[in-house]
Amino acid sequence: MTELFPEYTECGSEFSAVDISSFGIRDGISETIVSTGLEHPNAAPIGIIIKGGRPFVRLFKGSHTWANVLKEKYLAANIVYNSLLFVRSTFFDLEPSEFDYVPVRGLSFPILKEAAAWVIFECINVKNTDQALVADLVPIEAGFNEANRKDLPVPNRGFNAVLEATVHATRYQLSGDEKYLELIRHYETLASKCGGENEKKAMKLLYKVLEL
Amino acid sequence: MTELFPEYTECGSEFSAVDISSFGIRDGISETIVSTGLEHPNAAPIGIIIKGGRPFVRLFKGSHTWANVLKEKYLAANIVYNSLLFVRSTFFDLEPSEFDYVPVRGLSFPILKEAAAWVIFECINVKNTDQALVADLVPIEAGFNEANRKDLPVPNRGFNAVLEATVHATRYQLSGDEKYLELIRHYETLASKCGGENEKKAMKLLYKVLEL
Repeated sequence: MTELFPEYTECGSEFSAVDISSFGIRDGISETIVSTGLEHPNAAPIGIIIKGGRPFVRLFKGSHTWANVLKEKYLAANIVYNSLLFVRSTFFDLEPSEFDYVPVRGLSFPILKEAAAWVIFECINVKNTDQALVADLVPIEAGFNEANRKDLPVPNRGFNAVLEATVHATRYQLSGDEKYLELIRHYETLASKCGGENEKKAMKLLYKVLEL
Repeated sequence: MTELFPEYTECGSEFSAVDISSFGIRDGISETIVSTGLEHPNAAPIGIIIKGGRPFVRLFKGSHTWANVLKEKYLAANIVYNSLLFVRSTFFDLEPSEFDYVPVRGLSFPILKEAAAWVIFECINVKNTDQALVADLVPIEAGFNEANRKDLPVPNRGFNAVLEATVHATRYQLSGDEKYLELIRHYETLASKCGGENEKKAMKLLYKVLEL
């Protein structure tokens, strides 16, 4: 079948028509904003992991994303270049108006309007433990949003610093360990020096959330 | 003139036909690989700075990029998503075969074949001090390389970690301060955990250069 349809990509245990690398999801951990929830759309930053050609995800117990995936077995990975949206979706619910809906397998699945691209995955081989859920991902539908693609993204240490600060902020909230505050302050300096307006807004919001 | 030609963007003190934000160069510091040198093409990672709508660059004295810009007053900012190329162009000369040449103002200017996009700037108001050269940048020609754009880039903490490690490696080489080694080791862990094959190769090369 692979020879007859060379454009098809093997994903997990099934063949899929979606070449996810074209949509930015490649080897390593791709930092996306995952949308879930057929009834109440939700969004949160989640890393899509590919190791040895196998795409999978690890979701910590108790989150909305975890509950939605456990119940509905689907998620959409949104490729987003807006650092403020990473911070907002980490700590707050996005507005219903920030979601679009795409038809897939008779469902109307929520994706983010701000995404440059999105890939909807079916979650299979779901393993739910005390701490987290792990699921293999089979891409079933994907698309680009050309309007959001027109401005090419460029490596920016300020944007990257916001991602790092957000990771450390969630760890600080969980543990209260002050070593994370030191890291967050380091990344705030970098975001301020190398970032644009959006990175400054993102760090301001993050500081407000942490009451710094 | 702006009203007659709304697609024109004011850059520095001149009007230019190139909207550099479409090519990824925006507010803050855009991490590009700059190519220079009409006779002997050279490439090195350089941040293109935009503050208050003014694009400019700061080049440390003694580098090939500094010498070429001082002499020829042009540089090309290449948007590159390959972390290994950032490390290679920091510490080594690239191969002549890695450059393409584009015609601009009767010159044949070197750009990188690997670039997803490139912007050629004229360097004006060049101020050369004891330590560095600062020049305003007027975009005069730009282009996309559609073949390199087909795979969408996605935020990846491993890619970002390679950039940070490279910055700290150059500081370590200049100062010998061991605090940089600690940072480099932190980013190596991150590149290994979150990056793909390219990030692993990039960090391996960086460690080799630093004899770690």
